[in-house]
Amino acid sequence: MKHLPGEPQQLPGNRASLAGHQARHFLFGVERGVATLTLNRPERKNPLTFESYAELRDLFRALAYADDVHAIVVNGAGENFCSGGDVHDIIGPLTRLDMPGLLSFTRMTGDLVKAMRACPQPIVAAIDGICAGAGSMLALASDIRLGTERSKTAFLFTRVGLAGCDMGACALLPRVIGQGRAAELLYTGRAMSGVEAERWGFLNSLHAPDALPAAARATAQGLADGPTFAHGMTKKMLQQEWNMGVDEAIEAEAQAQAICMATNDFHRAYHAFVAKQKPEFEGD
Amino acid sequence: MKHLPGEPQQLPGNRASLAGHQARHFLFGVERGVATLTLNRPERKNPLTFESYAELRDLFRALAYADDVHAIVVNGAGENFCSGGDVHDIIGPLTRLDMPGLLSFTRMTGDLVKAMRACPQPIVAAIDGICAGAGSMLALASDIRLGTERSKTAFLFTRVGLAGCDMGACALLPRVIGQGRAAELLYTGRAMSGVEAERWGFLNSLHAPDALPAAARATAQGLADGPTFAHGMTKKMLQQEWNMGVDEAIEAEAQAQAICMATNDFHRAYHAFVAKQKPEFEGD
Amino acid sequence: MKHLPGEPQQLPGNRASLAGHQARHFLFGVERGVATLTLNRPERKNPLTFESYAELRDLFRALAYADDVHAIVVNGAGENFCSGGDVHDIIGPLTRLDMPGLLSFTRMTGDLVKAMRACPQPIVAAIDGICAGAGSMLALASDIRLGTERSKTAFLFTRVGLAGCDMGACALLPRVIGQGRAAELLYTGRAMSGVEAERWGFLNSLHAPDALPAAARATAQGLADGPTFAHGMTKKMLQQEWNMGVDEAIEAEAQAQAICMATNDFHRAYHAFVAKQKPEFEGD
Repeated sequence: MKHLPGEPQQLPGNRASLAGHQARHFLFGVERGVATLTLNRPERKNPLTFESYAELRDLFRALAYADDVHAIVVNGAGENFCSGGDVHDIIGPLTRLDMPGLLSFTRMTGDLVKAMRACPQPIVAAIDGICAGAGSMLALASDIRLGTERSKTAFLFTRVGLAGCDMGACALLPRVIGQGRAAELLYTGRAMSGVEAERWGFLNSLHAPDALPAAARATAQGLADGPTFAHGMTKKMLQQEWNMGVDEAIEAEAQAQAICMATNDFHRAYHAFVAKQKPEFEGD
Repeated sequence: MKHLPGEPQQLPGNRASLAGHQARHFLFGVERGVATLTLNRPERKNPLTFESYAELRDLFRALAYADDVHAIVVNGAGENFCSGGDVHDIIGPLTRLDMPGLLSFTRMTGDLVKAMRACPQPIVAAIDGICAGAGSMLALASDIRLGTERSKTAFLFTRVGLAGCDMGACALLPRVIGQGRAAELLYTGRAMSGVEAERWGFLNSLHAPDALPAAARATAQGLADGPTFAHGMTKKMLQQEWNMGVDEAIEAEAQAQAICMATNDFHRAYHAFVAKQKPEFEGD
Repeated sequence: MKHLPGEPQQLPGNRASLAGHQARHFLFGVERGVATLTLNRPERKNPLTFESYAELRDLFRALAYADDVHAIVVNGAGENFCSGGDVHDIIGPLTRLDMPGLLSFTRMTGDLVKAMRACPQPIVAAIDGICAGAGSMLALASDIRLGTERSKTAFLFTRVGLAGCDMGACALLPRVIGQGRAAELLYTGRAMSGVEAERWGFLNSLHAPDALPAAARATAQGLADGPTFAHGMTKKMLQQEWNMGVDEAIEAEAQAQAICMATNDFHRAYHAFVAKQKPEFEGD
């Protein structure tokens, strides 16, 4: 896009850096545009607590405005992804809440998924070992999922007497692995093996456990190298067209892609192609 | 949920027993909370008639209020599931109906699928042999499908000069096996083999023919053992979120799961976990 | 349907022949009810140009009224399907357009997909070699896709700095191969191999390269042999029910199928069955 000299290139006040940000309830770091978020209570397979839910929700909301993060890796420390809401720290207290309190909790966990889907950065989940309950929803709310054969993903809400409809599972899982397979997992709470998960399209690919972190990092780096504005539009439209009619989706994409054609990255790609060079995307 | 002494635990008049119910056009029995419904004209591969359609519709509507049925098995007698609407009993008479009569028929068959999706009990279909036409729709309208390698499932409406859009096929089948595979089956009417059906996610698992009834029964029993209120909510939300946006689905699940967290079964599961016991769910 | 003598059987003025039609920017021919459309710049892997986009859009719109075309084959000359929008002919000029011009372009390409989904004839794509960019969308906008192991399908918009949301990709692809696999392809632009494409449900079947044209032709001929009115209704309802609720879709199908039951083809099928003959469908 052509700009007059001195004209602001971005909306002032709307962007902020997350490099150097210190998370309280998990590990967080940014390198070359890739944020890595590591759940880090390996001795208990990285369970979530009220505090970590809230911090995750707030962090993903902040990521929507981070100008130095272009892709995100979510993983767990110590050979497990995430065991979900801790029974002692979460389930016990929930049994003592009144209805407004319960709804506050289910809205908080739902808001985490909403924030993961709303931030413009693609999210790559690296899934080894146990991926259960709310952990399986963190994986499902990601854009791309890499995993291991030994990983076990279980939407096990039913095991604590609850329904499969938690944090968007009944909407998201059927679109990823099909309505029939999703129904079985959500009704029974049984674990999906890594091999099943790849075969059914939940995992995009399988990796050896010790190769998984690098593979997830490389996938995220490839996305962070751009075109980042366009990737953010892809993510937005995958969400936006979820329940549009086909014709309305096509018009929505005509508008969205016309916006992308007005970016400098589109011009950079064209000129690099003509010059037989690899394009250097800058995100504007 | 806490109740005052003497307060009604359920809405009076809204629940009824189906144990001992005698069906007229098929077999029906209830054991340990599992209803088994068996199409039983094996010499003709269990076709449907006007009367059996209507009785199936009415029975699934009654199941919505049955307090002693918590999961349902649908199967067919004699090594076949269901051959669909009988050509002589159904197709012939249809060629002589006027438009209001035709619409009455297509609405009756559609109402059967609506009733199967609206009753709170998960439905397990056990599919061996021929599963064709309206029979394939009975299978598709179920929640979990177990089958055999030799099973053949055909949406063969096109073979009698009709469209693939019958009883919800164009809505349901693409979400189960994908839009491209569904389109081929619906346009051509060709049979999907058991191996294809498992590979594509139509069948949840394959079983030897003589092991199929027990496998279906065991799956249904596992669901009937609860948490049944939560399973009913899972089923409701899978239906309810069919064409919601992602954010709306997440809010809907926040409300639905908060309701489940107010049930005694949620508390039972927590206390069983703390006591290192298997929870005994009671459905309230 | 019964008609009075002399009563018009079709809406006058609404149907036209496309036999003998000469296309300007690709090959087009009609034989036994099957139109074959061949992109024919094999030395450049059959790229699209502004002119061929527009002609394709207009041709599919005309096909909606063609009374002598009942199925369509789309393929490419010389061992490739289509390389998409030509970088020199399309991308270069796009970098010099203003916003209204850009939107005119994205709406033109979107209108091509809308026209492919709106014409009543099922479309069979025969995909060998390169199937990239807008070419992958021509394939995706088809109803049935046959391909080869060596085919490579890439939604590579991201490679030219654009988003994956092009011509409806973010709506259509997730419903065909699942949301997770679609996200990976749309974010990364990587090619999907023929084996992956079949495994994921993008391709309905794999064929040897020299057997592919005949297989596509045979599939299309099978559909063109009818019942063509019913096939058009199947296609319409697959589109129409895209974002309906389940119950609304079932009612929509009750109406649509009742219409099909009032056709002569339904009666022909019944009488052929009774006479143990193969039905001869005539499309009314």
